[in-house]
Amino acid sequence: MSQYLLLRLELAAFLDHYTNIIDSDRLEDWPGLFTEDCLYEIIPRENEDAGLPAPVMYCDNNRMLRDRVLSLRHANIYEKPAYRHFVSGLEFEVVNETTYALSANYMVVNTSQAGESAVYQAGRYADQIVRTDAGLKFKSKRVIYDTLRVQTLLAYPI
Amino acid sequence: MSQYLLLRLELAAFLDHYTNIIDSDRLEDWPGLFTEDCLYEIIPRENEDAGLPAPVMYCDNNRMLRDRVLSLRHANIYEKPAYRHFVSGLEFEVVNETTYALSANYMVVNTSQAGESAVYQAGRYADQIVRTDAGLKFKSKRVIYDTLRVQTLLAYPI
Amino acid sequence: MSQYLLLRLELAAFLDHYTNIIDSDRLEDWPGLFTEDCLYEIIPRENEDAGLPAPVMYCDNNRMLRDRVLSLRHANIYEKPAYRHFVSGLEFEVVNETTYALSANYMVVNTSQAGESAVYQAGRYADQIVRTDAGLKFKSKRVIYDTLRVQTLLAYPI
Repeated sequence: MSQYLLLRLELAAFLDHYTNIIDSDRLEDWPGLFTEDCLYEIIPRENEDAGLPAPVMYCDNNRMLRDRVLSLRHANIYEKPAYRHFVSGLEFEVVNETTYALSANYMVVNTSQAGESAVYQAGRYADQIVRTDAGLKFKSKRVIYDTLRVQTLLAYPI
Repeated sequence: MSQYLLLRLELAAFLDHYTNIIDSDRLEDWPGLFTEDCLYEIIPRENEDAGLPAPVMYCDNNRMLRDRVLSLRHANIYEKPAYRHFVSGLEFEVVNETTYALSANYMVVNTSQAGESAVYQAGRYADQIVRTDAGLKFKSKRVIYDTLRVQTLLAYPI
Repeated sequence: MSQYLLLRLELAAFLDHYTNIIDSDRLEDWPGLFTEDCLYEIIPRENEDAGLPAPVMYCDNNRMLRDRVLSLRHANIYEKPAYRHFVSGLEFEVVNETTYALSANYMVVNTSQAGESAVYQAGRYADQIVRTDAGLKFKSKRVIYDTLRVQTLLAYPI
């Protein structure tokens, strides 16, 4: 039992590390949390429920993640987001000795340039996490959002 | 000390399991998290503070919880909620070898059919959790909410 | 590894205890969570980023914290806050055998007297926590907030 609970704690710490990298704008460290042959996608919940694809962001290898960071750094974004992630409701299954399937609620509070803080997006992470020689990594991370109004043009990682 | 911390982790995992069952609309599994002779109530904070009863939802045995799920499944709800629970500030006391008194903040973010995500309700859980042969169960769960505008007609579990 | 994870759990429990003391209006217990020679400040993020001081609340010893509580108790506050803290994204470093440097996201949901619950403030804790004979204490706690509209006159602890 206590092994399972410690594993839970380790996965929670990994998620916290992930969200801190985004919230503190260390995007260059973001691809390093994924395996080389990873999947990362942001998809509306209604598409997920209907079994339809059409993610607003889709990367199926690490190079695409790195390209995304470069694009974000060089794009003229009118308003740079000021995100704060909150994660709750973590549950996971042990798929095999080095792979875990994880689900958790997330919420992003954004503060606009006018200084207003509000719920920007809520949804669910559905992740596959693997243990590698270099620590835990996302083999796949699926961000399934409830909220309708989501910036789809050059989306930031969530 | 580490036994106490592992117990904390176990109670947090149980709460996360509880909120996931609601958020993923697996309401049929919800009564199974309670003992047979359980108490479940949703009550406004001002009533709680004044020592007045008048909960908006009150069930004092497991059958009432199961009836509630049936009612919700067969009722014509205009707008089915899309809840995301967030729990923080967990504290607990060991009442006896198999009973724990727990308190935690909760917040429910709801996404309307128009796709807007916002804080729907905030409050505090005040729970008695017992360890049974079938795992942890709520002996009582009191949902004490701060927010005024709460749907009182056929309320969903929180 | 498991020692590090248990330490993480202990720090999370301490933060939860801290936020509960505020949310349940036990302000008299609040200074007891700090060392005698503590630092407590609430500072806007833009000042922090620019390396400028000008915190909206600044206490550099425990007596100032106790004075603050007395002021809050005796002041005519038009509307007493009804806070719920949510903390996520905890990360920490072990500075030395008894000192930990911690960072975490926080969000405060406030419910107005009209009964509306909304995000009141979001930001980041940057804390130094020390292990003393009387348990964990904040040696310094810096509350760095993103939100612009923050009540600066007789601010409550966050």
